Formats: sequence, C-alpha cells, structure tokens
Amino acid sequence: MHIHLINPNSTASMTAQVLESAMRVANPTTRVTAVNPLDTPVSIEGGTDEAMAVPSMLSEIVKGEAQGVDAYVIACFDDPGLHAAREIARGPVVGICQAAVQVAMTISRRFTVITTLPRSIPIIEDLVSAYGADRHCRNVRAIDLPVLGVDSDPAEAERLLTIQIHKAKLEDRAEAIVLGCAGMSALCERLSIATGLTVIDGVTAAVKLAEALVGAGYATSKVNAYDFPRIKTPSPAKIVEQALIR
Amino acid sequence: MHIHLINPNSTASMTAQVLESAMRVANPTTRVTAVNPLDTPVSIEGGTDEAMAVPSMLSEIVKGEAQGVDAYVIACFDDPGLHAAREIARGPVVGICQAAVQVAMTISRRFTVITTLPRSIPIIEDLVSAYGADRHCRNVRAIDLPVLGVDSDPAEAERLLTIQIHKAKLEDRAEAIVLGCAGMSALCERLSIATGLTVIDGVTAAVKLAEALVGAGYATSKVNAYDFPRIKTPSPAKIVEQALIR
Amino acid sequence: MHIHLINPNSTASMTAQVLESAMRVANPTTRVTAVNPLDTPVSIEGGTDEAMAVPSMLSEIVKGEAQGVDAYVIACFDDPGLHAAREIARGPVVGICQAAVQVAMTISRRFTVITTLPRSIPIIEDLVSAYGADRHCRNVRAIDLPVLGVDSDPAEAERLLTIQIHKAKLEDRAEAIVLGCAGMSALCERLSIATGLTVIDGVTAAVKLAEALVGAGYATSKVNAYDFPRIKTPSPAKIVEQALIR
Amino acid sequence: MHIHLINPNSTASMTAQVLESAMRVANPTTRVTAVNPLDTPVSIEGGTDEAMAVPSMLSEIVKGEAQGVDAYVIACFDDPGLHAAREIARGPVVGICQAAVQVAMTISRRFTVITTLPRSIPIIEDLVSAYGADRHCRNVRAIDLPVLGVDSDPAEAERLLTIQIHKAKLEDRAEAIVLGCAGMSALCERLSIATGLTVIDGVTAAVKLAEALVGAGYATSKVNAYDFPRIKTPSPAKIVEQALIR
Amino acid sequence: MHIHLINPNSTASMTAQVLESAMRVANPTTRVTAVNPLDTPVSIEGGTDEAMAVPSMLSEIVKGEAQGVDAYVIACFDDPGLHAAREIARGPVVGICQAAVQVAMTISRRFTVITTLPRSIPIIEDLVSAYGADRHCRNVRAIDLPVLGVDSDPAEAERLLTIQIHKAKLEDRAEAIVLGCAGMSALCERLSIATGLTVIDGVTAAVKLAEALVGAGYATSKVNAYDFPRIKTPSPAKIVEQALIR
Amino acid sequence: MHIHLINPNSTASMTAQVLESAMRVANPTTRVTAVNPLDTPVSIEGGTDEAMAVPSMLSEIVKGEAQGVDAYVIACFDDPGLHAAREIARGPVVGICQAAVQVAMTISRRFTVITTLPRSIPIIEDLVSAYGADRHCRNVRAIDLPVLGVDSDPAEAERLLTIQIHKAKLEDRAEAIVLGCAGMSALCERLSIATGLTVIDGVTAAVKLAEALVGAGYATSKVNAYDFPRIKTPSPAKIVEQALIR
Repeated sequence: MHIHLINPNSTASMTAQVLESAMRVANPTTRVTAVNPLDTPVSIEGGTDEAMAVPSMLSEIVKGEAQGVDAYVIACFDDPGLHAAREIARGPVVGICQAAVQVAMTISRRFTVITTLPRSIPIIEDLVSAYGADRHCRNVRAIDLPVLGVDSDPAEAERLLTIQIHKAKLEDRAEAIVLGCAGMSALCERLSIATGLTVIDGVTAAVKLAEALVGAGYATSKVNAYDFPRIKTPSPAKIVEQALIR
Repeated sequence: MHIHLINPNSTASMTAQVLESAMRVANPTTRVTAVNPLDTPVSIEGGTDEAMAVPSMLSEIVKGEAQGVDAYVIACFDDPGLHAAREIARGPVVGICQAAVQVAMTISRRFTVITTLPRSIPIIEDLVSAYGADRHCRNVRAIDLPVLGVDSDPAEAERLLTIQIHKAKLEDRAEAIVLGCAGMSALCERLSIATGLTVIDGVTAAVKLAEALVGAGYATSKVNAYDFPRIKTPSPAKIVEQALIR
Repeated sequence: MHIHLINPNSTASMTAQVLESAMRVANPTTRVTAVNPLDTPVSIEGGTDEAMAVPSMLSEIVKGEAQGVDAYVIACFDDPGLHAAREIARGPVVGICQAAVQVAMTISRRFTVITTLPRSIPIIEDLVSAYGADRHCRNVRAIDLPVLGVDSDPAEAERLLTIQIHKAKLEDRAEAIVLGCAGMSALCERLSIATGLTVIDGVTAAVKLAEALVGAGYATSKVNAYDFPRIKTPSPAKIVEQALIR
Repeated sequence: MHIHLINPNSTASMTAQVLESAMRVANPTTRVTAVNPLDTPVSIEGGTDEAMAVPSMLSEIVKGEAQGVDAYVIACFDDPGLHAAREIARGPVVGICQAAVQVAMTISRRFTVITTLPRSIPIIEDLVSAYGADRHCRNVRAIDLPVLGVDSDPAEAERLLTIQIHKAKLEDRAEAIVLGCAGMSALCERLSIATGLTVIDGVTAAVKLAEALVGAGYATSKVNAYDFPRIKTPSPAKIVEQALIR
Repeated sequence: MHIHLINPNSTASMTAQVLESAMRVANPTTRVTAVNPLDTPVSIEGGTDEAMAVPSMLSEIVKGEAQGVDAYVIACFDDPGLHAAREIARGPVVGICQAAVQVAMTISRRFTVITTLPRSIPIIEDLVSAYGADRHCRNVRAIDLPVLGVDSDPAEAERLLTIQIHKAKLEDRAEAIVLGCAGMSALCERLSIATGLTVIDGVTAAVKLAEALVGAGYATSKVNAYDFPRIKTPSPAKIVEQALIR
Repeated sequence: MHIHLINPNSTASMTAQVLESAMRVANPTTRVTAVNPLDTPVSIEGGTDEAMAVPSMLSEIVKGEAQGVDAYVIACFDDPGLHAAREIARGPVVGICQAAVQVAMTISRRFTVITTLPRSIPIIEDLVSAYGADRHCRNVRAIDLPVLGVDSDPAEAERLLTIQIHKAKLEDRAEAIVLGCAGMSALCERLSIATGLTVIDGVTAAVKLAEALVGAGYATSKVNAYDFPRIKTPSPAKIVEQALIR
C-alpha cells in the first residue's frame, strides 16, 4: 500500500517532519512518501495562501495517480483543495483537519483545537462545522506564532501550546486537544505527556485513516460530486486540463 | 493488536458473519475476536432491544479489559451503549454507525443509509445527526425486512437492498450507500458491484478505524465525560459495580 | 389518574424525596406512586450508570402496565431509557430533563442548567440539543458535588447551587434556572426565593406535564418508532422478552 | 385556577368552538374563559393579519391581569404576539403551536403539521424550528381551505384533512399529526379515530399545559426578556402605555 | 426612485436622524423620505413595544403604496412587522437588522452586535439566527442605556459603545461591529475611526440595499408567503381591512 | 465608482454576457469593467475547475487594486476564491451566489436554485448553508446541461430552465428562483415573465450589492480573517508573493 503525503506549502523542513510523523505510525507494509511543491507559499496562513498552493498540490496528485498511489494525505490543517483532490484521485484523499476531528469525536465528547495565528480561527471553525463537529468542538484557540515560527522555534511553540492546553482544560472543559497545524506534529507526544490530556495530531490521524480506508477497500465515489474533472474542448488552458485526463 | 467485536444481540450466526467480515479486512498482525452475550434479544430493533442488550455488552467489555483488548467494535448499527462502553474501556470503542458515517463523509459528499425496519429510521436519523452528518446524509431508507430475515434469507435481503440502492441513486442523488445493519455485512461487496455505487459496511469500516486508532496510539480520553464509571458505596448493586472497578 | 414515578437509581431516600415533590404539586384526584429498582447503581453519574439502570427501570414499566398506570415519569435528569420506555408504555412517558426544558422554553427566553458533576455536562448538553433548546440554553454548569452528596448534605448543595445561580444570572444572562438532578428537587423553592430567579425542578415539571397529557387524552403513538417491542422467536432471552409482551 | 383563552381573530363562532374544546379537557376546578377582540381580522392568514390582531389581543391580557387570570392560551396556530404577551402577563402564556409541538415531541419521534392555506406553511415551519422541532417535524402540509372555510364547512375540512393525514402517514412516515389551526379543534378526535394516527389539537394541548404550569407554580420569568414593558415618558401613546403599567 | 423610511416609534428626533443618515449615502437620483407614526411607543424596547408599533407602521406602508414608493426601510433594529410589511408592499421591504447582518457577512467573517438594553439581546440573537448568521455572529452585547438615552445623550452612548467595541475586539475577536439600534446611526463613522474597527449602521446598509434591489428590478415575490393580505368578508374589522385592499 | 467583474473561467463570450447584464443595471455614474483570465478552465464545473481558476482570478484582483477598483464581483456561482479575494482587496468582494441568496432571502421566504450539472448540487447546497439560507432554500436543482451548453445553446437552456422552474413552483413550493450559473444571466428576465415567478440572477444582484456597499462606504474589514496575505521570507515562491504585496 502506497500512502502519499502532500505538504501544500514549499517548506521542505516541514515536509520532512510530516513524513517522519507518518513513518512513526504507518504499518510496516505501507510505503509512505511525501512531497511539497516548489512554487507555493512557504506556509499556509489564510485563504490566499491556500488558493496559491492548491493547483501545484493537485499536480502532485495527478503525478501520484500515474504512480499508482493508493491514498493521499493533504498535510495542512486548512484542508486546502480537499474536494478538488478527491475529484482527481481514484483512492481516498484524507485531510488532516477532517481526520483529527473524526478521531477527536471518537475518543472524547468535547475537544479544543489550537492553531498558529488568530486569522486561521474562523477558517478552522467553519471547517469543523462542515465536518459536523459543531457541538463537539468547544473552542478554536491560537498561540499567535506563525507557521514558520513553529518550524524554526519548536521550544517556543511547545511553551505556548502548553499554556493554551491548560487553558482549554480549565476554561473550555476540553477532554482532548487537536493540534491545528501540520508543523506541530512532532510536539504531539510530549504535549500529551506533559499536560495529561490526549493530544491529537492530524498527520498521524490522517495517515492511519488513509491506511484504514485502503485496507477496507474504499475508494472515492466517482458518482456525481467527486467524479473526475470534466474534459472540455476547445480549451485555452489545454496543458493543465490534459494533465487531469484520466 | 487485539480488536474485539461485540455483537450485542444473542444470535451466534450474526456474530460469525461479523467476525468473518472483520477478518477479511484486518491487518495480518491484528488479532480479531468476536463475542455475543447469551442473554440479550436475538436482534436489536428499537430502543428496548438496545436497552436490554447493553448491560451484557458492557460485561463483555469488562472481560475484554481483563484480557488486554486494544480496541472494541460494537457490531450493531444503532451503536447501543457506545458512550457507556467508552467509559469502561481504556482503548478506543468504535460504533459501526459512526464509523460508516465517517467513511461516507470522506469518500463522498452525499450518502443514503439503508436499514432493516422502518421503526429504526428515526433512531438512525438521530445518530447520523449526532455524528455531524446532517447535510451529508440524503435519506435513511428501510427494506422492511427484520434483522433475522436478513440473516436467514440473504437472497431476499439482497434483492430488496438492490431496489433501494437504485432508488437512492435516482431519487436521493446518493453518491454512496451505507448499510444500516451489521447483518448486511456479507452482502456489501456484491451490492457494490451489482449497482455500481460504493456501498459501505459499518463492520468493515469500524474494524479498520479501530486498527487505525490503536496504531496511532490514541486511547479513549479519561478526562471528564469518558472517565471510568465512579465507584460508589454503599451500593445495593455491588456485584455489577465491582466488575467495573479499574 | 395514576402517575407512576420511577427513580432509576436504587437510593430509596431519593425516591422518597421525588415522591414528596410530586405529591406537593399533583392534582388531588391524581394517584402518585414512586418506585426504584433494587439492583441499579445508587446514583446515575454517566453513561454506564444509565445503562446498568435501564433494564430494571423498564421492568418497572412492564409492571406498571399490568397495574393500569396512566403515565410515567423517569426521575433522573439524564432521561435514561426514555425512548425504550415509550415503546413499552401505552400512556405517555415524561423525562424530567425534557419536561424541565419545555417549561424553561415557555416561561423564559434563555436559561441555564445546573447539574451535579462536570462529567454529566456533555450528556446534558446533548439532551438539551436533542430537545430543541440549543438557542435557549445559555450554559450547563456543575456544582461538582456527587448525586449522593446532594442527597446527604442538602445544605452544602444549596450553598453551591446558590453560587452557580448567581453566576448564571451575571455571566450567562440566564432568565431561569433548571436544576439538573432529581435529587435537587426539594431545594427548588428555597433557591428561587433566595436568588430571585425562577428555578425549575424537572420532577415537578414532569409530573404536571404527565397529568396534562393524560388529561388531554394523549397516549404514546404506537405507529413506527414507539411501537411495542417486537416479539421474536426463538429467543435465547425468553424471560425478559416475555415480560415485554403486550 | 383561571385559564383565559384569547382567540386573536374576531370570529365569535371560532371562539365558541375553542372554548368548548378547552372545557372538554380542563380540570373540574379550573375556570376556563374565552374572548375574542372585536376589531381584529376575521381570521389570521399571514403576517398582516397577525400584526393587526396583536394589539387588541394584548389589551385582553391587560384586562385579564386586572381580573387575576392565572394563565393565558393564545388560540391561533401562528402564536401571534406570544413574546409580547409574556412581557405583559405575570402567569404563563401558552401558544397553541408551541404546546402542540411539545406534546408531539413527547409522544412521537416524527410528526407532520397540517394547516389551512399554503401561505402559512413557511410561517409554521419557522415557528416549529424556533421551538426546536426541526428534526422531529417531517413536513408542514396545507389543505388549501381558508380558516373560515374550516369554520363554515367542517365536513369538507374533515375530508381534506383525512386525505392529508393518510399522505403524511405514507409519504412523510409521520407518527403523529398536529392540526395547524385552532378552528380544526373540534375535528381532532374524529380524525384520530378515522385514521388510526394520533392527532394533536393545539387548543387542548395548550389548555392542559397552562394548567400544568400554574399547578406547578411556574410563572413567566420577569428577568430580562419577558420583563414588563418599560414605561416611557413623555409618550404620545399614553393611553395604551398606561394600560400596561404594572 | 423613491425609498421611504419608516421609524416605527413616535420619536420625531430619531426619525430626523435616520433620514439624515439615509440622505448622506443615498444616490443623488434617489428620493428619500421618512415618517414615524404618531400613536406608537416612543421607543421600541421589547416585544410589546414592537407589537404596539406595527399596525401604524403598516398603515404607513399602505399610504406609501398609494404614493408609488419603490422600496421601504423599517428603521428599527428589531425589524418589527417585516414579514407583514412585505405582504402589503409591491416593492422590497428592507429591515435594518437583516441589512446590517448581510453587510457584516460580506465584509467580515465574524462580527458582534451592540444594542441598547440587555432585554433586547435574545430578540436580536433570534433575528440574527433567522437571517442565517449564527456562525458569523460572535456575540450580542448591550450598553445598558435606553433608546431615548442614546437619542438625548449621544456623548454618553458613544462612550459606552466605545467600551463595548474594544471588548468585542478583544474578547469576541470581532472583525466588524453592527450597531443594534437605529438611534446609533449618527455615531457610526466616529466610532469606526476611533476604534479602528469597521462599524456597520443598519440604516445606511438598508437604504443602499433598498436602492440595489429597486435598481436591479427585484420586487417582493407575491407567490405564497408574501402574497397580499387576503380580503375577507363579512369582516367586523372593515376599515382596517379595506385599507389593505390592493 | 469602479466595479470590476471577474469571470474566473476563460470563455470570453461569457464574460461579455456578464458585462452586458451588469451594465444593464449599473448606476449611470458607475464604471463597470469585466475580465477573464486566459489560462483558466473554459467553465467551472466542480472543485478542480475552481481550484485551477482561482490563482489567475486573484491576479486580476491584484491588478485591480493597482487600478483603484472600488469593488469586485466574482462572476461564477460557486463563488470560487471568495475568501481569498477578500484578503487581497481593500474594497468589498461580492460573490454572485452569496448576493443572489441574500436577495432571495429578502424578497421571498422560500426559494429554489437551478444550476447546470448535477455534480454542482452538493457544492451549491454547502454554499447556501454557509450563507445561512438552509431554511430558506427549498431545493437545488440541475438542468443537466454543461455551462458551455448554456452559452452555446441558450434556447435549449431556456427550455430546460422553464421546466425546472415549473417543477420548483409545484413540488418545492418555491416563491422565487435563483439561477445557479453566471451564464444564465441573459435569460433571467424572459424566464421571470414566462413563468410568473421572480427569477434572480446573481450577476445583477452582485453588481447592485457591490454598488450599495461602496456607496455606503463599507470596505472589507482588515482585522483578522480578511487581513492582507502575510508577506513571508525567505520564500521559494517569490514572484507570486510579491504580486500580493500591499
């Protein structure tokens, strides 16, 4: 089984971290690979960053299809381009936000998400709601440290996350924590031990759910919404379109 | 890894079928076991059947904890006693309805559930809503055949399910189907091939999600709602209570 | 008219208190009785306690049906087994949580629930939501005193409830308070006078609603969801099943 | 105990019918009275009719307060002026739509409302939603007969209602029916017997709930939203305002 | 194009202020007029005030229809009688709460409403929810100054609003503010400059949306819910009814 | 005032039609321009098409900012890149779906959307829900004609739309129709006259709302979610990022 992680931003150190988190939990028989596009924003912090990252991310899925990838993980907590990716892929495509939310709803009754910048809070609130966890999610908090700050200064990120986890326990009555950024993946276990609260990392969750879906034999439904993109001619955008031909 | 399936009803043939479905998809290193209580209703068709089945089902979890089970699957689509089971178990407890709904939300945008008797429709609608899939679930349909009818006459069940799947495709614009009864598990693959629509079996989904959760290292949060049941004295119900002691 | 209260836990002093609250408000022509099973947890504090209490509670309804009871009140704020009870009973079955919520929605626009232990907060939040009061319920609070603590030290319960009621008034802008435990019933009037805020006791509310439903001639609909439990043979659980025969 | 029914429209025959329905179910010790304003629309069929009826209806509540009325029933299914009436009254004010919906949620899991004209359907849908019954209410249907048509030709109303009840049973899987017009009150019992489906009349429901609330000692909370209307000077609308002085 | 503002209360100074706000933003070719009834409450602070104001407000719409008004703005933040007004008017009727909410949802992702008295908070919360902004509206706050206090002491209103805007920014993470009272209209620009947060005035929003609707050629749909009020005979309320004849 | 329409697809004939629709309703003093990127899909029919179109669409907004555009209209009914566009633009950005939904909620109580292909139905349902019109939107229908089919064969589109409008009136009880594709813009008036039902075109609605927002002085809030995209260095994607510099 081949699970392919796509980090939509262009920061290779984050891709490496994400891959490491994935390999720590993947089954021995699972082949895990990871990639990031070269021409996307260095971090995803808002809708424009998402939009600029998605086409190149989709190109990686087109490449993956040619290589027989079984399932994809989109390793950014905003789940950018998730629906589009599912149109292109035959196998399942798992977003780390949706995966983390599904895990959180299964092992706790109430959870809190902690992300990087406050500007991402409404984005994540709307995602959590779209995934059906309105009542389960007590709060979305931010440590007010940019994504690259988490990557370059993990000790500071850990300190700020610890503060917010304690607040979530006390003020939100959170029973579990969801880390709201792929770049926090490496801190997950230490935070869980230090705070005594289950901490869920979306990358870990998504890799295991991807394995589960492939193992169960479930592919993306090609009936209606997630059908392959339509081929249209005459197209003034031929090159991109042809790359999407099944 | 030890995944333990509990069929809450007392019909051993259903337990056998559920175990077979589980073993077909489980990882080679996973130990899968299944059990059913002896003193519960022969099938779960409504709230009373659920209520009568849950205490014995919980006893199986108490036994499982003593045997070091890593995760449990409750193999009845009403997810009876799911919250209670999570209080008792250290590891994750996966309900087949919740698991199937999570899979359906990942591989399609709109799905329909097909269950046995019409009386279960409101129960399942409320569960689907509690799991956050209000907008994703187009409809809950019934084939109007009792659970034991599915068990004893699978050909008739298959015929009736095929009719409803075609209706779901046409009338509901369903992109995937969720089978709303553990006893339909063995029909899943044939129905999918025959109708050309992805058909999701909750047993399969739950076993793989249970493996995923254990593999990722996620246990049930013991903070607040899913904390172990409180020990209370003096109790006129000593025996049951003591069985639940951690 | 015969209204029968069932306290699902096995603490007789609580049953006595509940009966007293009921008799204080019942119509003179109403016969009010109360019972508690002997083999259930001494208090209901979470899903496992609920699950262990329901079968014996349902047996009391089976007995009640034989005695011609007109309506039942389930005297535990988690409304355990409410849907199951309605399948067995011909007359209405009123849960004290649902009754209190309906009263609160009628005499105020925004209310707060105050319960015993924090672990019950998510349970009650989900109930309140299922009863349609998401927007009306400002908050669910807990005094962090176990149910039996309320029963054995009512003065302490009153002190803690008074603190939370004042907080609910100030912080939640609550216009009414719902007491989230049958065992708080006797404190209701004193708390209302002391705090100047309408305090609603679910036992009182449920008894009066039960009288109202019987007086109006409304019985539980036996069409579909609340139809009598199905009789199934051959059943390895004959005794329990036969008790449920209509 | 004095329960006062206010029919907001000016059709005396409907007031008489409503009073008769109320007296049939009221407790022997309850004094039931009914009134209709003289200067309001002859029937309430839309928002303008509601608006034109409310001030005179509120005047009747001002009068009722002077006479020591214990609780009010607003006998129009749109529940016009319900929030305003609760500001003026000390005791509870029960709307027949809210009462019927609360009963329907208690004795069934899914119900359908049947009203007079299609133009009232969105109004009732929004009310049902505000009362928290979105998931419980399968459908709102109309017989397409004006309110006064129901009053003048009850046989035709009965015929049309019977058709819609059968459709609700078959197409909506309704487990109970709520009659969506006070003028249908007299037909309730016959329809229930003829169709085999529980039929709920809002007038009956509201009278019994009003008795229940008074019997339980619950008055309208005067904290915040339902506080008495504020007295303001200098007011160019002195007479009406003064009538509202506490 | 003729836009007609109706201030439902009888305080002429507020009508003047509302007209001034409207004229400041109206297109040069738009004729803007404003009126207030003489016999309504001096301010709208709760449901009774609303109810007492609506019939006279509707009479103003009847007059407006005779004068060829193209669209109406109801200049009270509770949007009293909005649905009724739409039944009577041929052109669009815009409520200042709905208009402000639509603007706030377009130029921000999360906003907070600040109104006059706390008793209006639940009313506004329910309106905001009915307009579909549940997730976008972070909070409804009150400055605890009556409507006439805003009118007579704008400096004090400005001081209190400034405090609440800063709290909304900090505690609610509001990205925009909606002023929850027509009488705050004149303070809007100053508050926006002073606090650095976009402040939305419903009067301004509604006038521009009314112009937009008329300019686009959209009138109120007369199919079903907003059809003209039905004419009914024999009516004991002839005069009012006849005024509503198309 | 300068309103700039961006047709995200690369079909110039649709851009021309959209511009024509806009100019028909724009104020005489409004300068209306329209553009389409050259390298995007020829039509937007699903998530991949959206994703491939957004970066070039955002580039047009960057250009527009340099030219002093006052407000933008995104002329595709999926509202692709709407949140991203609001981050980049100073003035308001109006999506034609959100605009049409806001108009529909103002001039009717219940409406139906009619789009091109069935695959877009779940996308539009989710958008309508995000814009708060869950209860107002009765249905989303499709004529099953691709976007370019509407463009090339408007007579066939009109015929199919007429059929669906009549069905919406009859089966959905729709009171207004929203055309769910920018390419249907030119058909709007004819359909409205032919069917007697108000038909709302998103392009028209959006242009007028954009004028309204600019006229009222409301710009996009730059506090939090819609703040300008963050500038990040060192970036391997320098060129695109620099284009976004404020």
